Amino acid sequence: MLEKIQTPMIIVNFKTYLEATGRKAVELAKKAEKVSNETKVFIGVAPQFADIASIAKATKIPVFAQHVDPVKPGSYTGHVLAESVKEAGAVGTLINHSERQLKLSDIDEVVKITREKGLISVVCANNPNISAAVAALNPDVIAIEPPELIGTGIPVSKAKPEVVTDTISLVRKINSKVVILCGAGITNGEDVAAALKLGTQGILVASGVVKAKDPYMVLREFAESTKL
Amino acid sequence: MLEKIQTPMIIVNFKTYLEATGRKAVELAKKAEKVSNETKVFIGVAPQFADIASIAKATKIPVFAQHVDPVKPGSYTGHVLAESVKEAGAVGTLINHSERQLKLSDIDEVVKITREKGLISVVCANNPNISAAVAALNPDVIAIEPPELIGTGIPVSKAKPEVVTDTISLVRKINSKVVILCGAGITNGEDVAAALKLGTQGILVASGVVKAKDPYMVLREFAESTKL
Amino acid sequence: MLEKIQTPMIIVNFKTYLEATGRKAVELAKKAEKVSNETKVFIGVAPQFADIASIAKATKIPVFAQHVDPVKPGSYTGHVLAESVKEAGAVGTLINHSERQLKLSDIDEVVKITREKGLISVVCANNPNISAAVAALNPDVIAIEPPELIGTGIPVSKAKPEVVTDTISLVRKINSKVVILCGAGITNGEDVAAALKLGTQGILVASGVVKAKDPYMVLREFAESTKL
Amino acid sequence: MLEKIQTPMIIVNFKTYLEATGRKAVELAKKAEKVSNETKVFIGVAPQFADIASIAKATKIPVFAQHVDPVKPGSYTGHVLAESVKEAGAVGTLINHSERQLKLSDIDEVVKITREKGLISVVCANNPNISAAVAALNPDVIAIEPPELIGTGIPVSKAKPEVVTDTISLVRKINSKVVILCGAGITNGEDVAAALKLGTQGILVASGVVKAKDPYMVLREFAESTKL
Repeated sequence: MLEKIQTPMIIVNFKTYLEATGRKAVELAKKAEKVSNETKVFIGVAPQFADIASIAKATKIPVFAQHVDPVKPGSYTGHVLAESVKEAGAVGTLINHSERQLKLSDIDEVVKITREKGLISVVCANNPNISAAVAALNPDVIAIEPPELIGTGIPVSKAKPEVVTDTISLVRKINSKVVILCGAGITNGEDVAAALKLGTQGILVASGVVKAKDPYMVLREFAESTKL
Repeated sequence: MLEKIQTPMIIVNFKTYLEATGRKAVELAKKAEKVSNETKVFIGVAPQFADIASIAKATKIPVFAQHVDPVKPGSYTGHVLAESVKEAGAVGTLINHSERQLKLSDIDEVVKITREKGLISVVCANNPNISAAVAALNPDVIAIEPPELIGTGIPVSKAKPEVVTDTISLVRKINSKVVILCGAGITNGEDVAAALKLGTQGILVASGVVKAKDPYMVLREFAESTKL
Repeated sequence: MLEKIQTPMIIVNFKTYLEATGRKAVELAKKAEKVSNETKVFIGVAPQFADIASIAKATKIPVFAQHVDPVKPGSYTGHVLAESVKEAGAVGTLINHSERQLKLSDIDEVVKITREKGLISVVCANNPNISAAVAALNPDVIAIEPPELIGTGIPVSKAKPEVVTDTISLVRKINSKVVILCGAGITNGEDVAAALKLGTQGILVASGVVKAKDPYMVLREFAESTKL
Repeated sequence: MLEKIQTPMIIVNFKTYLEATGRKAVELAKKAEKVSNETKVFIGVAPQFADIASIAKATKIPVFAQHVDPVKPGSYTGHVLAESVKEAGAVGTLINHSERQLKLSDIDEVVKITREKGLISVVCANNPNISAAVAALNPDVIAIEPPELIGTGIPVSKAKPEVVTDTISLVRKINSKVVILCGAGITNGEDVAAALKLGTQGILVASGVVKAKDPYMVLREFAESTKL
């Protein structure tokens, strides 16, 4: 999977924000693509399920689902099938975001399904211990996000740098290959640079970009800051 | 909402069947549209979230989501927002399918959300008592499906006609307007005619159409049988 | 079931408050029993599972579980079996409390199980519509508790009397026998009297009693107020 | 915590079996205590919540809850509080049994709570990867149980010895102290001896004891076989 992804990487989670739903999701994805083309930094977007296909058609940006269910094709009304998001154009998926947490065995199952289907798995974790637990499941990417900082504008890299360094240290004892991102509270380039300086390989961001007055400018600043 | 829907009505639930995912979902929806045009019978399809937009673009058939979450726009990663499926082209949604059951208060919340957003609510129920409970929440449509018959090819209208008639009787004491469908085990026109004869106003079907050798022919037979 | 219960009734939910855990749960139950003996008002207590047996041994007060799972005896580790709480001494159970909500079909299943096992079912509901839905499932008791008022000290009978009267009106159209309680925010006798004046047959209370400086005095006031 | 527990250890999960509910739960616990006294092998029992106190009073056998919720004292109706099961007499708890699985972050939270409260944490895991993930959370005990073998009478130590040895190998890379049990399908002393020979430090058993014609004899055989 890793040949498809580069580090540093930035993933923008569109959540269920109206500013990133439907037509606006496509517009935002185009801005992200523009920044990626201009800066040569890997930027992925994670829109709602119903917007995956439109974004995949309108752009070449890597698209991630926000969640995939631990199910195979069959009688699972209302579930999110890996095959479905892949055919719609997704290259990967977030898993276990703090707003959509899974049972441990379901995380394991979804990671396996993504591996079989050739999708990039980005598993979110709340703290260093949980990150280490996730590392044992061998996903492609771990994103550490202290839930208490999500949406606050207080970046984990500043407020709790030890959360990031402890995560890296615990994860690396178990898994030398997994890409480590951090998230929560990132609003400017300085936060991004700080995150990378602490040893992460990128960031997962949501409101900091989606709710920004000028998402293009913010993302551009983020991307440039990965090069500092 | 009811001006948008006609009875008798047929809704085809695509579940997460591979035969009804991605490109194949669009093809199946086109067949359903053809039958609807030829027979003038209301046929809706309920594909996976990622296929709603493609089907809505490729056809004029009414598209239903398979599920909507009880959330407003905001920080809800991996959730299904009513606004999102509506902008993608859905005219309604299944709610509380036996494979995606909800807490009672969430059913109430989603029914309210669909009403605000102008989406048709189709709430599934397992038995007559539960159908009566659902009727008190004032959805547009109730679909009674005994879960033990789903996918069996044994139609509820034959195996347990009293489930259907009890449902109608209990529901009508509480709610005179809601459209009542029945589902589970329907595979041929005879089953459809039996369901309507018992007093329902249509059917919810999945494998009987999706897994059929010739879905067009089966749906055509279903549609004709609503006129008997 | 109704021969076992009297109205007006007061049920005290011990939640997982430390003030009502273990030895302190037994003490609190004894105070409730004292008030019940003195006032001849029906008072039940709903302690944590592990305290049911001790309270049932130490008092004659009616004990309710706070929750029962929709399972039969068998391979269900960590579940709460109706048979188990009954043998421990419970005479009934809360179901679907807003802090322990259930899928609609599970509420139906648990109500059926309690009926089979001779346990009093007290189903909680958030609003009038949901109360009406619950009424269709024929429990013994419905407790309407607007979750936004729980623990606030603002009684529903004052803040939202129309919630109570709408509930009574909707429920009675569907079910003439079910006992209707109201809860949330009740802290003094005046609130209790107001609740009964609106047409309820009792109250469900938690912090108003458990966290009171003198639970005996508060309960005594509650009980007396049911006679006004 | 480990000073309280000895290895080899046997834990008998009473599940919600009627044969191990209420008065019968106490009787079964007494048999287990007798075997433990006679053989000097550590035997714990995990009864339903409502039976913890009675067993703790009637015996000196170590009692485990079957589950604890990730909550602190407060407004959590129907939840299982660590403080409550501890005061009732439990010395530990099962966590994440395959019949009561938890979100990853909740496992982490419950392990922390048990540590704070001085309870022994026994976290169940479905497969070697999940066992390794659990090991990163530093519980006292891990019990590996392939869910497909639970209740079958086919012991994992025979059917899938590599599951056990892989688990031990993966877990030990991450955590050198955690006690490793295996479970599922164990019905006789040979199975127990096989489990220990593969490197585990004991077993988690349910129907093999609870549903046995003579639970005392079976447990006695199990205990003796840990000495082979």
